[in-house]
Amino acid sequence: MDRHASFHDPPRFPRGFACAATLCGLKSEGKDLALFASRVECAAAAVFTRNKVPGAPVLVGRELIAAGRLQAVVVNSKVSNVGTGSQGVEDARRVGRAAARELGIDDALVLMSSTGVIGVRLPVDKIEAGLRGLAARLQDDPRVGAEGIMTTDTYPKALSLSVGSAPGGPDAPVITLVGKGSGMIAPNLATMLVYAFTDAALDAATLDRLLRHAVDGTLNMLSVDSDTSTSDTCALLANGLAGPVHPDVFADALHAGFLRMTEMLARDGEGATRMLRVTVSGAAGEADARTVARSLVESPLVKTMVFGGDPNVGRILMAVGKCVDCHIDAGRIVARIGGALVVERGERSPFLDDAVRALLQEDEVDLEVDLGVGPGTARAWGCDLTHGYIDENAAYYSS
Amino acid sequence: MDRHASFHDPPRFPRGFACAATLCGLKSEGKDLALFASRVECAAAAVFTRNKVPGAPVLVGRELIAAGRLQAVVVNSKVSNVGTGSQGVEDARRVGRAAARELGIDDALVLMSSTGVIGVRLPVDKIEAGLRGLAARLQDDPRVGAEGIMTTDTYPKALSLSVGSAPGGPDAPVITLVGKGSGMIAPNLATMLVYAFTDAALDAATLDRLLRHAVDGTLNMLSVDSDTSTSDTCALLANGLAGPVHPDVFADALHAGFLRMTEMLARDGEGATRMLRVTVSGAAGEADARTVARSLVESPLVKTMVFGGDPNVGRILMAVGKCVDCHIDAGRIVARIGGALVVERGERSPFLDDAVRALLQEDEVDLEVDLGVGPGTARAWGCDLTHGYIDENAAYYSS
Repeated sequence: MDRHASFHDPPRFPRGFACAATLCGLKSEGKDLALFASRVECAAAAVFTRNKVPGAPVLVGRELIAAGRLQAVVVNSKVSNVGTGSQGVEDARRVGRAAARELGIDDALVLMSSTGVIGVRLPVDKIEAGLRGLAARLQDDPRVGAEGIMTTDTYPKALSLSVGSAPGGPDAPVITLVGKGSGMIAPNLATMLVYAFTDAALDAATLDRLLRHAVDGTLNMLSVDSDTSTSDTCALLANGLAGPVHPDVFADALHAGFLRMTEMLARDGEGATRMLRVTVSGAAGEADARTVARSLVESPLVKTMVFGGDPNVGRILMAVGKCVDCHIDAGRIVARIGGALVVERGERSPFLDDAVRALLQEDEVDLEVDLGVGPGTARAWGCDLTHGYIDENAAYYSS
Repeated sequence: MDRHASFHDPPRFPRGFACAATLCGLKSEGKDLALFASRVECAAAAVFTRNKVPGAPVLVGRELIAAGRLQAVVVNSKVSNVGTGSQGVEDARRVGRAAARELGIDDALVLMSSTGVIGVRLPVDKIEAGLRGLAARLQDDPRVGAEGIMTTDTYPKALSLSVGSAPGGPDAPVITLVGKGSGMIAPNLATMLVYAFTDAALDAATLDRLLRHAVDGTLNMLSVDSDTSTSDTCALLANGLAGPVHPDVFADALHAGFLRMTEMLARDGEGATRMLRVTVSGAAGEADARTVARSLVESPLVKTMVFGGDPNVGRILMAVGKCVDCHIDAGRIVARIGGALVVERGERSPFLDDAVRALLQEDEVDLEVDLGVGPGTARAWGCDLTHGYIDENAAYYSS
């Protein structure tokens, strides 16, 4: 489906959307505050982390989204406003109010997110000061907003595509995604921070259904390090300026957009040098396929094998077998790396180590596992485990 | 209970047990083959990995242990004989037969284990040659056998203690443990390879019950890297030469022995610079406590925090909260590092970063988390995640 999607280069916003970003002083350089806004009110849906210690913006966001209406999103990086108690909730609301005031819209239409260190109070005064004047600087480039929400991401992540299979004319609805990822990425119902904007006209209930479906097969199958963030938020805003669109056509484009964003996030996992894409087939059911795919993409020993490019493919059998609640028949497992057969009927196949070593050196490593016991399939995304991950996380708080 | 246990320094065998080790050519240096034997037949119990792709020695071992009798254990390192199909099973039996022949005992009394690379055929000829003459070299030092089963372990792991709370006289029964760990360590029903030998007289059914109980609160709560090995085996052999002992008294000593072996394995996890011991209390039940303790000890972000000694303690909240099926009340979570309060009622406490930084630099880092919602407690063991882990596993197969 990705093949047929009409992605834009460079990415742009759907009509009526714009963003701005600034450095308000939470970081010492770069950008740390972003504002995304629609000219008109939007129908909206959102999904949030299932982590039981959710951040204050998640608590407030769940309240806000119940009405199915949003017009803006304000996001800061560096401090996540998690583990901050009732003060944190009040701080999150203050940020929302400040953004609403700057845009001249209702407080209830502003979703706020924060990403960064857990357990530190949000410097709201700096954020309020940073928001002043930002409405006048709204612009059409989503990469500007993406830059404002980065933490350890190495580049801003934004994309856009036209809805519909024909090359999108000037009138076709557009979907734009802005996201961040990098570490603490093992989404459970949503992912780190991803915002989707569209000018298609769809109601909130439909958006909610389509968003959950798109996330389920993309962001929810992404894992950089198996650690589920306390701040995961994924929202979809539709301002309707391009008029109605068939939900199925919209769903296809939405899925293609989320798929690409998922791969961008996987590729830029903390310290990653390669993306790892795992496809499981032949599972007893979809649930088993998802469990095995996640087990493979999260296994430290599979991930270090991909980093080292050393074909210790027996680890694939280990990571399949450790799914003790799945239906696994060791003698039926088949595995391929980059298309080359490495495990056949549960045994390491005779193959040229050098050929597999070369395939493991690619920027994208495709690992396919066929369990041979049923029709279940699933795909998961991740990255290798490297010295860079250790470096970034052994001294993240102080840095 | 560990405090009152009478450990021996140096470790020794119970009466009637001995071991030998040699280099039979699987490795280029060190030792790669060990033989443990009792002078007389033993009652025995064993638990094995729950990984669904078990090694050939595990498949054969399950058959053997059904009779509840063993007299010897033969173990090779470097090649695990996993992912080797029916040929692997025949190879495992050949190794058992060769050891039985060397010792002049029944084939059915020899448990065999293999540890190392997955998916490579076992060089049985080398092992058979290595076993010849080994019976004449059996000796009383369990560290010799421990050396023969090492893979990436940095030192041989053996310990012994007397059974009973009084200082063990010459007649007190002895329990000796020999183990290996390092990587692919997240036992599920057993752990990597641990063998326990005793001269206490206990029947196989009692040994089975006591072994499962001891393992459940020790080895089964150890995780170096969350990857469950295909070769995990833990066996207990009792030759009865010291006469009967009350099972409860034996259970106390057995638990103390397994606890210490668990900490030895945690401390020597691949690349580890520190041991991490996590104690969870106040959980709704024991199952929740175990889940949260494992989540903390396996979290890459908690592990890199411990490596870096950087007090990013919000990650503790994340790793608790990601246990989405547990009863968690964010506002009640209390956490301590080395006794210092770092999270209070779900919020990062005001504290001296430098003090916590110093506590994180200790060889052993104690993390205590009180969930404040019930009586459930559990403890788990692990280690930090370091550059050493990446180095060892990015090129393990070829090395």
